[in-house]
Amino acid sequence: MSVNSKIYEGKAKILYSTEDPEVLLADFKDDATAFNAQKRGSILGKGTINCSISAKLFQELSTQGIKTHFIDSPKPNQMRVKAVKIVPLEVVVRNIAAGSLCQQTGLPLGTVLKQPLVEFYYKSDELGDPLLTSDRLRLLELATAEQVETITHLALQINEFLRGFWERCGITLVDFKLEFGVDSQQQLLLADEISPDTCRLWDQAENDPNRRVMDKDRFRRDLGNVENAYQEVLQRVLKAVESKK
Amino acid sequence: MSVNSKIYEGKAKILYSTEDPEVLLADFKDDATAFNAQKRGSILGKGTINCSISAKLFQELSTQGIKTHFIDSPKPNQMRVKAVKIVPLEVVVRNIAAGSLCQQTGLPLGTVLKQPLVEFYYKSDELGDPLLTSDRLRLLELATAEQVETITHLALQINEFLRGFWERCGITLVDFKLEFGVDSQQQLLLADEISPDTCRLWDQAENDPNRRVMDKDRFRRDLGNVENAYQEVLQRVLKAVESKK
Ligand SMILES: Nc1ncnc2c1ncn2[C@@H]1O[C@H](COP(=O)(O)OP(=O)(O)O)[C@@H](O)[C@H]1O
Ligand SMILES: Nc1ncnc2c1ncn2[C@@H]1O[C@H](COP(=O)(O)OP(=O)(O)O)[C@@H](O)[C@H]1O
Ligand SMILES: [Mg+2]
Ligand SMILES: [Mg+2]
Repeated sequence: MSVNSKIYEGKAKILYSTEDPEVLLADFKDDATAFNAQKRGSILGKGTINCSISAKLFQELSTQGIKTHFIDSPKPNQMRVKAVKIVPLEVVVRNIAAGSLCQQTGLPLGTVLKQPLVEFYYKSDELGDPLLTSDRLRLLELATAEQVETITHLALQINEFLRGFWERCGITLVDFKLEFGVDSQQQLLLADEISPDTCRLWDQAENDPNRRVMDKDRFRRDLGNVENAYQEVLQRVLKAVESKK
Repeated sequence: MSVNSKIYEGKAKILYSTEDPEVLLADFKDDATAFNAQKRGSILGKGTINCSISAKLFQELSTQGIKTHFIDSPKPNQMRVKAVKIVPLEVVVRNIAAGSLCQQTGLPLGTVLKQPLVEFYYKSDELGDPLLTSDRLRLLELATAEQVETITHLALQINEFLRGFWERCGITLVDFKLEFGVDSQQQLLLADEISPDTCRLWDQAENDPNRRVMDKDRFRRDLGNVENAYQEVLQRVLKAVESKK
């Protein structure tokens, strides 16, 4: 594989190889997609915003002992990351019922869950990222039993930390999606991104169910002011990180 | 509630009250629906066939110590059953991958599962009978933990028996759906029906993936010869029951 060649273009990022085979460069795009890419658009500035937010959150998480793929950010919309083999699971942690959980259970939007819910979806655009039961997860051998256990534990730990972090931003962490991968040393690392594209974030200063939305649901549901919301999330993240120093 | 009044009309059966409040009369209809009733039609003779097959299977299962709602069959398309409060779960047991399992996992049709898979779906036409993870099942409190455990055990036991029974009919039991309910004495009973509407049944004498289908998939997938297939299943069931005596 040649140096600096595009090795994968996804819906939100492009991955490039680097001189170091264990390092990839992730270039965050402004492209936005929803409903398994049936809806397509673009959110001006999103690449930079999501890369910056992700970088800050990965750095915060590593101070908590969580191992992530993040190395550094050579440009505002680029991140150098440790190359991993992605475990083909979308790991979703939910604190409050929203989205497909409401559609599939009838739980009203906004229902506070007694305990955080860790759910696994098969990362497969072709199949539409279907929900997995533990039996299906085992059947498909998408991860070892040990990986599933470790990932569940990590997901809950990350949730505890991120809830507190977003709280300091005046934002309620409703739910979010994580991806994990295994590096060349067989270490399990938190990978991909953590951003308004992959989290549901509700502004605690707003009560209106549409006005409070600060995440990709603004794009999914055509709520308008998408760029402003993403920009505002970044500002609050930077302030929260700054104020801790 | 007055005697012999219609208390519920479902997609496949009508339930009537009887002089005994603990007994209901289930009248099996020829109506056929699929894809959450988006596809509608009728299968001539289905009411009688499904009622007869269900009656025989419930009787066979009770010789195995499985408690069912079946009392007797006053008419070929009618069954007297113990009134139960249905646990709102569709309990699906799978021996071979087919239907939504293939669509949602990418497993090829016909993949033989190493172990039978017991799956729970929320019985809700409104929500489209969504698949439930154990966490969602617990969250929705659709059944107690004890009921879930008992139902899982019963489902596997019923599967073991039915596999052997259908085998004697020259039929492979691919998967099937069960419903359970609780009677006035708080006993958990196997309820509803077991028929070509609720099982996937493959004729062992046929290799062609369409020709072998002896169940509602003929209707769902417009494979033709629906009535003949249902009739043939009944004949084999009657012969298998008869030959054991
Ligand atoms: N550290 C990493 N090493 C290798 N692949 C990664 C890493 N982090 C994320 N990925 C993968 O990079 C791809 C690009 O991201 P994205 O544009 O979000 O793609 P997708 O459309 O597949 O979600 C994703 O498939 C993601 O799983
Ligand atoms: N013994 C029973 N007591 C009470 N309800 C029952 C019993 N057995 C089955 N049922 C219910 O009877 C209803 C009628 O059957 P069906 O026509 O298949 O309805 P549906 O369209 O809801 O599946 C179903 O909702 C089923 O759960
Ligand atoms: Mg992605
Ligand atoms: Mg039914």
